[in-house]
Amino acid sequence: MAVRTPDPYPGWLSPDDLYEARNRLPMLYVEAVPVRLDPLGYVNEVGLLLQADDEGNMMRSLVSGRVLYKETIRAALLRHLEKDLGALAFPQLPVSPVPFTVVEYFPSPSQTGFTDERQHAVALAYVIPVTGECQPRQDALELTWMSPAEVLSGPVQMEFVGGRGELVRQALAFAGIAP
Amino acid sequence: MAVRTPDPYPGWLSPDDLYEARNRLPMLYVEAVPVRLDPLGYVNEVGLLLQADDEGNMMRSLVSGRVLYKETIRAALLRHLEKDLGALAFPQLPVSPVPFTVVEYFPSPSQTGFTDERQHAVALAYVIPVTGECQPRQDALELTWMSPAEVLSGPVQMEFVGGRGELVRQALAFAGIAP
Amino acid sequence: MAVRTPDPYPGWLSPDDLYEARNRLPMLYVEAVPVRLDPLGYVNEVGLLLQADDEGNMMRSLVSGRVLYKETIRAALLRHLEKDLGALAFPQLPVSPVPFTVVEYFPSPSQTGFTDERQHAVALAYVIPVTGECQPRQDALELTWMSPAEVLSGPVQMEFVGGRGELVRQALAFAGIAP
Amino acid sequence: MAVRTPDPYPGWLSPDDLYEARNRLPMLYVEAVPVRLDPLGYVNEVGLLLQADDEGNMMRSLVSGRVLYKETIRAALLRHLEKDLGALAFPQLPVSPVPFTVVEYFPSPSQTGFTDERQHAVALAYVIPVTGECQPRQDALELTWMSPAEVLSGPVQMEFVGGRGELVRQALAFAGIAP
Repeated sequence: MAVRTPDPYPGWLSPDDLYEARNRLPMLYVEAVPVRLDPLGYVNEVGLLLQADDEGNMMRSLVSGRVLYKETIRAALLRHLEKDLGALAFPQLPVSPVPFTVVEYFPSPSQTGFTDERQHAVALAYVIPVTGECQPRQDALELTWMSPAEVLSGPVQMEFVGGRGELVRQALAFAGIAP
Repeated sequence: MAVRTPDPYPGWLSPDDLYEARNRLPMLYVEAVPVRLDPLGYVNEVGLLLQADDEGNMMRSLVSGRVLYKETIRAALLRHLEKDLGALAFPQLPVSPVPFTVVEYFPSPSQTGFTDERQHAVALAYVIPVTGECQPRQDALELTWMSPAEVLSGPVQMEFVGGRGELVRQALAFAGIAP
Repeated sequence: MAVRTPDPYPGWLSPDDLYEARNRLPMLYVEAVPVRLDPLGYVNEVGLLLQADDEGNMMRSLVSGRVLYKETIRAALLRHLEKDLGALAFPQLPVSPVPFTVVEYFPSPSQTGFTDERQHAVALAYVIPVTGECQPRQDALELTWMSPAEVLSGPVQMEFVGGRGELVRQALAFAGIAP
Repeated sequence: MAVRTPDPYPGWLSPDDLYEARNRLPMLYVEAVPVRLDPLGYVNEVGLLLQADDEGNMMRSLVSGRVLYKETIRAALLRHLEKDLGALAFPQLPVSPVPFTVVEYFPSPSQTGFTDERQHAVALAYVIPVTGECQPRQDALELTWMSPAEVLSGPVQMEFVGGRGELVRQALAFAGIAP
C-alpha cells in the first residue's frame, strides 16, 4: 500500500467521502509480490519498490492498491501491476483467485502485527511472476530485484514498514524457498 | 449473505451511510460452509440454512456476513457462525487465513456469475467443521444436514441463489469429494 | 496416467522390479491440467489428450507420469509436459509446490473413487498454463482444446476413466470457474 | 521422519526389499506439525518431539512417517499421529487433502535444501490441531509445547535436522503468524 501518497484511484468516492469510509469500513486491497522465475518455476528474484515517506525516509514496498467498486480482483491486480511496474512488465496473473495469504492491516495497536495507520485494510496477497521489462512508475524511485536470501537478510527486512517484510517472508515460504 | 434482512451489525455506519457505501465500495464478507466430518476428516454432511426471501420464496443459504471495521476475519467468522448456528455449534476455526476460494458477487449482469443485487461483495469462503449442536437462529427457518451427494443433486442446487450452489460445489471439490 | 502403455522412464528399476514395487508401495505421480488463459488469468480452454486403451477404446486423459528417483517434482512436471505436449508448449511451472489437489488412485474397489488397476498411485495435481504451440507426442492421438463448459458437459465427462473427469472438475473449481 | 530407527511399519516389504526400494524410488511420506489453537484458530503452541540420533545427539522432530501400500493419506496421518502422540491426542484431520507444502528430501547434496541421507522422500505436510492429551510414544523422549516465537528462535532452530526448522517456519507462515 502506497500509504503516504494520495490515492490516485478514488473510485466513485470523493476524497472526503473516502476519508470517511476509511474510518468506518474495512478497505479491500490486493497486494502482489513480483518475482522472476527460472524455467522450473523456482523464484530467482523478488522485485521491491523503493519509496520515500512523508518525512523523506526511504522504505521498501510491494505492488499494492485498492479494489474499486465493481472491479474484479484480477482487474485490480492488473491495474496496480501496470501502475507500479509499467506497461511492459507482462505479469502472469494467477490461475486461481485464492491468495497465498490474507493480510489484515490495522491502525496501531494492531491485533495481527500488520499495521496501516490510515485505515483497516484487508489485502489479498499474490506472488506474481513477471517476464517483461519493469520500470517503476508513479511515486516509486526505484525497483530493485534481489535474491530471496537478500530479501530475507536483516538490513533489507528493516527497510519494510507495516509488516511487509513478514509478508515477503510468507510469500517465499509459499514458494517453497528454504533460505 | 442474509440478503433480505436488515443488517443487525451496522458497525459504525448508520443505515443510510451503509446504503451509500454499498453503492461505492466493495463490501468485505466472510462465508462459511458448515460441515460434519468423520474421524478421518472426510465430509459426511453439509449444513444448509433455509430462509425465505422478500416474496416468501424459500432458498438455501450458507453462513455469511460482513466483516466490521477493526474486526479480524476470524472474529467475523466466529460471530456469524454463532449468529447462524447458535452458541453450542463449536465450530473449528481454520488454522490458516487462506480461504478455499474468494467469491466476487456483483449486481447483475455479473462478470463472475455470482450475483448480489444489493452490492459488490467480496467473500472469503471457508469450510468449517462443527462438532456441537446447531440450531438456526435469526431469520433462518431451518438448518438441514445433507450428504455431499444430496447437496450436489439437481433439486437442491436449484434452491440456491446468487451462485451459492456453485460455491458449495467448490467447497466439496476442495475437500476432495468425488461425487 | 498413461495407464496402458509401458512406462518409458523406468528410472533405476527394471520392468520386473517396477512391477514388483507397484504391488508393494504407493507410486508418486505428477498430473497436470494444461490450460490457456486470457490476459486476466481466466481459463479460456483446457487441453485434453485422446488415447486408445488396450481394447482400442478411446479415452481422454491429462498430462501425467511418475516422479523418478532423485528427480524433483518440478523436473518431473516439466519432463512429462514436454513428453505429452511437445518441446514448444512453453508451460508455466507453478510458483509453489502446493498442488491444487492430491489424487489417490487405488485398484478397485477404491476407497476414494479414483481408480488405477495397475497400482496405488498418489498424484500431485497442478493447473499448468501453456503459452506456446502444443503437439501431442508419444501415444496420444490428439490434443483437443475445449472450453470449461464443454469439458464439464456429460458426453466429454463420459470419455474420462479412473475419475479424471472429476479431477478436471476440481481443477476448474480451483480456478474459480462458475459453469 | 524418524530417520534413525528401524521402520516399524514395513508394509508388505521385507527390510531388505525396503532397503532396495529406497535406493530406487521416491518414498511417499506424510508429515504433521501438531499445534494447539486458541478459540479463534490462532496457533498458541507447536508440539515438537525430542529424539536421540545414533550418536546420542538430541534433535527436534515432527510427526512423520511413510504412506503404506493401499493406505490413504488420511489413514497414514492418523496412524502416525497416534503412534507419536498417543491415542488420546484427538487430532483434527484436515478437511482438504491439500498440504500446506510438499517437502522433497534428498540425500546430500540436496537440490532443495531438505536432506534425508537414507532416501529420496516426498512428504505431504499438514498443520494438525490437537485437542486432547499427548504423550510421546515409541522412540521419542519427550514432547515439548512451545510458542511460535520460541520455535522460531535461534537455539531451537539449531536443534532441527534435515531442514525441519524451515518446515516449521513454513507451517507458521501458512498459519499467518507474524513473529
